[in-house]
Amino acid sequence: MIKAIGYAAHSPTTPLGPFHFERREPGPHDVQIEILYCGVCHSDLHTVRSEWQNTVYPVVPGHEIVGRVTAVGDEVQAFKAGDLAAVGCMVDSCRTCPDCRENLEQYCQNELTFTYNSPDKHTGKMTYGGYSNVIVVDEHFVLRLPQKLDLAAAAPLLCAGITTYSPLRHWQVGPGQKVGIVGLGGLGHMGVKFAHAFGAHVVLFTTSPSKAEDAKRLGADEVVISKNPDEMKKHANSFDFILDTVAASHNLDAYIELLKRDGTLCLIGVPEMPHPSPGVANLIFRRRKIAGSLIGGIRETQEMLDFCADHDIVSDIELIPIQKINDAYERMLKSDVKYRFVIDLASLKQESAAA
Amino acid sequence: MIKAIGYAAHSPTTPLGPFHFERREPGPHDVQIEILYCGVCHSDLHTVRSEWQNTVYPVVPGHEIVGRVTAVGDEVQAFKAGDLAAVGCMVDSCRTCPDCRENLEQYCQNELTFTYNSPDKHTGKMTYGGYSNVIVVDEHFVLRLPQKLDLAAAAPLLCAGITTYSPLRHWQVGPGQKVGIVGLGGLGHMGVKFAHAFGAHVVLFTTSPSKAEDAKRLGADEVVISKNPDEMKKHANSFDFILDTVAASHNLDAYIELLKRDGTLCLIGVPEMPHPSPGVANLIFRRRKIAGSLIGGIRETQEMLDFCADHDIVSDIELIPIQKINDAYERMLKSDVKYRFVIDLASLKQESAAA
Repeated sequence: MIKAIGYAAHSPTTPLGPFHFERREPGPHDVQIEILYCGVCHSDLHTVRSEWQNTVYPVVPGHEIVGRVTAVGDEVQAFKAGDLAAVGCMVDSCRTCPDCRENLEQYCQNELTFTYNSPDKHTGKMTYGGYSNVIVVDEHFVLRLPQKLDLAAAAPLLCAGITTYSPLRHWQVGPGQKVGIVGLGGLGHMGVKFAHAFGAHVVLFTTSPSKAEDAKRLGADEVVISKNPDEMKKHANSFDFILDTVAASHNLDAYIELLKRDGTLCLIGVPEMPHPSPGVANLIFRRRKIAGSLIGGIRETQEMLDFCADHDIVSDIELIPIQKINDAYERMLKSDVKYRFVIDLASLKQESAAA
Repeated sequence: MIKAIGYAAHSPTTPLGPFHFERREPGPHDVQIEILYCGVCHSDLHTVRSEWQNTVYPVVPGHEIVGRVTAVGDEVQAFKAGDLAAVGCMVDSCRTCPDCRENLEQYCQNELTFTYNSPDKHTGKMTYGGYSNVIVVDEHFVLRLPQKLDLAAAAPLLCAGITTYSPLRHWQVGPGQKVGIVGLGGLGHMGVKFAHAFGAHVVLFTTSPSKAEDAKRLGADEVVISKNPDEMKKHANSFDFILDTVAASHNLDAYIELLKRDGTLCLIGVPEMPHPSPGVANLIFRRRKIAGSLIGGIRETQEMLDFCADHDIVSDIELIPIQKINDAYERMLKSDVKYRFVIDLASLKQESAAA
């Protein structure tokens, strides 16, 4: 076994702190990766605090992982030691169901294994994520990371990036379309960048007038303050597609009314409390749709990383040492980050030395 | 002006009774139709009782109209006196907006004129519907009725028929697909017939075990009693498309959970009280959709009538004289009709004689 060190939470109320554990030795199809950077996703915080009531402790979060390959199994051909590599929200699936065969592993219903807090069929324990110095992952779930990308700023592409890229691609967002992005956080700021890169006219919806300037810098053509009904009303019946990145319970009708006939409001955040029930007449009288979308498949995640390299897209990040993670969570709760914290795992070395 | 007689309600609480009014003389593009049969839609009852709080009295309901042309305007080429003809939910629209130009007049947002209780640009009053002996309609909104169809049983095709046909076509229901129809009423029994005719494997959802045998006669391959959670669970993740015809508030999640990845639950009824808010995770984790659909455009309504002639499809009806309309409403509220009342307008003649 490989000795590993990470940051773990041991209960919903204790802060994250150093945690020693083991990774499996790489099997024939495995890739061993030294983790360099890991993005901080709101899901990490939900899981650490067991807000989804499903956390098994200790939990080592982190599913926006960028690193360097240090060893590969005998059968691995796509990676060799020294390569850059990345890992996102999934580390395994059944590979045989219709979803897996269509390269949509995120919808596998047999044995989808998430990168952390998921039963690990190799160890019999739970999977441990990227707030750590090393990870061993089946090659199918390892992404090639283009050299050109800034490594730290690329980390959030593995969750925030693909979670916005995939629905924008699935609903074929492109030139001539008017596309809304609701919320300018970790997901929303990537949604703005992608929708802009795909050639759409991009409108950012935010409750914070202070974010308008930044939204335009990121690629928004217009910014609408969603608390202002008059401003909202001006955009009635005009959107082809709206990507709603806000997980807090809110009024969906305010956005549904802005869709054209046949337009789609796509939700990518799961609220703790349900949204108010959307009005059925708003759907019927314009044949509108409400949809959901979950991250993206491995093939599409690779496509997204290659697209980012071609179009110079990464996240806007604030780099932190792992020792600041508990503070970062508090700041994240106040939306006090532009727009994603990324942990520099080099900072873990002092923990190893101390241990 | 043309003297007309119909049945009207004069307040939310008074029964329908004889009402004399006038129709315009046919203009160059108008078709004058002697009404032979008119289907009884639940919308008629909602409007008569102003349950949608928008009724202008007196109101003459009826938008499932079948009759014979008695006169046409100078410019009309597609119809001549003696032809069979039909009129559905709409009698006018702007004709110039993108929706109208795409033959989706039902989504016209400029001046869509419904067949009754809608401002009538010719008279300055409200439109009066098919519970009457004559109607004058612009040729664009008049349908050709294939000779082959039973006239009385064809009437409900104009609303119940197109309202189910259009979404089943739009979502490309066909062979190899598993399709659900929720509710076996006026709409649902047509949904079963069409989904079956399109070659899908059809599952009818009902709360009434007594409807199972009839559902199979109408074309359902399976019947699921929706109050039985075990029976519902057997169908989890298996439907391509579910058409929900039930307007009463109900739990949508019970059906969303039965959809495959990328499946759609399409609502065609507007509930008086909102449905419980559907779970967002149910959408996200399978990229499912909730949609709405409204009747169908004129071109598609003609296509539907022609399809019905080719496939021997009409509604299952109970024919009534207009003098029974108030009783019929009471029976409709108890679902005591298989599956649509149709008024024989020949019965109006005794009113004319009496008047």
